[in-house]
Amino acid sequence: MSDPMDYASSGVDIDLEGAAVASLIGSLQRSTRKPGTPGAPVDLPGGFGGLIEFGNHLLALATDGVGSKLQIATEVKDWSSVGIDCMAMNVNDLLCVGAEPIAFVDYIAVPKPDPEVHAAVGASLAKACELANVTLAGGETASLPGIVTELDLSGTALGFLDKDSAITGERLQAGDVLIGLPSSGIHSNGFSLVRSIIGRVGLGYTDQCPFDAHFDGRSLPEQPVLSDILLIPTKIYCEPIVKLLQHLKSTQGSVHALHGIAHITGGGLSNLLRLHGHLGWHIDTPMPIPPEFTWLQQAGNVTDLEMHRTFNMGLGMVLAVEREQADAILEFIKTYESNAAIIGAVHDNGHKVTHQNPDVFFEHY
Amino acid sequence: MSDPMDYASSGVDIDLEGAAVASLIGSLQRSTRKPGTPGAPVDLPGGFGGLIEFGNHLLALATDGVGSKLQIATEVKDWSSVGIDCMAMNVNDLLCVGAEPIAFVDYIAVPKPDPEVHAAVGASLAKACELANVTLAGGETASLPGIVTELDLSGTALGFLDKDSAITGERLQAGDVLIGLPSSGIHSNGFSLVRSIIGRVGLGYTDQCPFDAHFDGRSLPEQPVLSDILLIPTKIYCEPIVKLLQHLKSTQGSVHALHGIAHITGGGLSNLLRLHGHLGWHIDTPMPIPPEFTWLQQAGNVTDLEMHRTFNMGLGMVLAVEREQADAILEFIKTYESNAAIIGAVHDNGHKVTHQNPDVFFEHY
Repeated sequence: MSDPMDYASSGVDIDLEGAAVASLIGSLQRSTRKPGTPGAPVDLPGGFGGLIEFGNHLLALATDGVGSKLQIATEVKDWSSVGIDCMAMNVNDLLCVGAEPIAFVDYIAVPKPDPEVHAAVGASLAKACELANVTLAGGETASLPGIVTELDLSGTALGFLDKDSAITGERLQAGDVLIGLPSSGIHSNGFSLVRSIIGRVGLGYTDQCPFDAHFDGRSLPEQPVLSDILLIPTKIYCEPIVKLLQHLKSTQGSVHALHGIAHITGGGLSNLLRLHGHLGWHIDTPMPIPPEFTWLQQAGNVTDLEMHRTFNMGLGMVLAVEREQADAILEFIKTYESNAAIIGAVHDNGHKVTHQNPDVFFEHY
Repeated sequence: MSDPMDYASSGVDIDLEGAAVASLIGSLQRSTRKPGTPGAPVDLPGGFGGLIEFGNHLLALATDGVGSKLQIATEVKDWSSVGIDCMAMNVNDLLCVGAEPIAFVDYIAVPKPDPEVHAAVGASLAKACELANVTLAGGETASLPGIVTELDLSGTALGFLDKDSAITGERLQAGDVLIGLPSSGIHSNGFSLVRSIIGRVGLGYTDQCPFDAHFDGRSLPEQPVLSDILLIPTKIYCEPIVKLLQHLKSTQGSVHALHGIAHITGGGLSNLLRLHGHLGWHIDTPMPIPPEFTWLQQAGNVTDLEMHRTFNMGLGMVLAVEREQADAILEFIKTYESNAAIIGAVHDNGHKVTHQNPDVFFEHY
């Protein structure tokens, strides 16, 4: 049996990243913009950043890139999904504070301009704008031969919400029901590990997919190659969540029944711990796991714990909702996301994430 | 005499960049956000992007990176200015449409996390937020060992303006007076040429500065090295321009006396041509030229024309204002930018930029 693999062995030093981010935050001062003026920062209990005042509204910004998933796209010269990934990583984060995304800008860095790459990325961004219902409000293409060796793609999304409608996690309470929205696949996190595993087993991205990739009715090429599965675009959750926010406002006058929303990205389920300081989370009915995760786990001999803190394992977004309204909210969400399901509950037995699988357990993120 | 150098010989293929950008724009579709709703795109006559509707306001986004100036900062391990450069490139663009910048997010890509780099960039961004009077509303640090070989830094700025206050160039007319705001030095454009020239003359960035760098009372180390001059941070023009916008609104009820604003970046003076479809621009009294430009021109044997379409040549921003109000506006601006000066005028003799120096002439950007 081969050595077990984990995220650190794939070359990502999470502690070093933490220290770097801490030193960055440490050197940032408070804003010069005074409370009550446009642009003044809004402190949220959960430590979320990105919200600023704007009259009777709050504006939210999110910025993120596609990361090392891009390397697979570049290797197989298929950039049709990366614009969608870039959009998803940003707008899904905005949704978590209850913001409706409205605009996006992209930043493309390449060693030298290549009309083929730009056309493909542009088409992908255009599709992404449609899926997220946002305006592409600008972009920058930088040629940086001394800095990048291949395409880097990042972006920034802008959203807005009513001043009293921020979803902060402060209304969370024991008994809240967790509704899960399925992911489309690996999304855009964990690709250092994906690439290490595939390198170790000696497969190429254009080799035939070594497992049955059919899952949940997704459409696949007749003979899918590995990259077809690895590059499935990250799901954009704007439609179900924006519709739900609007529905709650129009029928209940507020979005208060929604106590917390988490986008499952790097860190997997451990991200849930950010939403509240002492409540805990139990997943008793996990979402079905797409076959690529099962195959990666076997191929890399990865533990269940490591899988769940590196990948989404089929769960793209989690909504924590008031128990009394859970069925109605699930029913509503299913109009847009038919495989949404109740996956667990919030409890008051300690600040931890537990799971149907006892090996999956988090006390830190 | 050595061969004359120009921007293309330094490795930047402007035509290829143009084709790449065109293919990107070509594949972008119209927004799904309908006129009258938050996020709907606003078409400006000058072809500026980035403005969207938001109730009685417009919101503006700008995204840009620092580019190859970063390579000098990384080589000499001095990142104290790059956050300011990144901020300036974005907020100065927002000011051109009459927007007040209020928030900023940064994107940092590194081959691996390095607390020294992150702390220095963080401190520089914090200083930049203060100078621009914006809130740092988030950021992303990506470790991308397969994509970047050294630090890349970009960012996105958000600004706002009243719905009827966009400065679009449509009020421009012959006779408008051009007010110039001085640059602080090379700012963040033309660094491919800067690096080529310095490479060719065989100097290192930590070699003593080969010219007298004193200019206009700027503070310098006692024995400046080349990088001290090359890395002078880009000037942030928020204070003079935001104060001017506020002053015009409060005293005249509108900003209509300001007919056009241009940030002089890559393309130099040729950028002015973007502001109007057929009016022309004559610079009869250029700003004083900082000594680094004179030295670079001699060292690289660069033509006057090439210098003026690659560098700002001492001119950071241009305001085109109503003739009758030019003196009063200049007087006001001088409170914040004492070396602002009248540099020329708008005319109706063809869509071109002309200059006191007859070799500096642009009909295309």
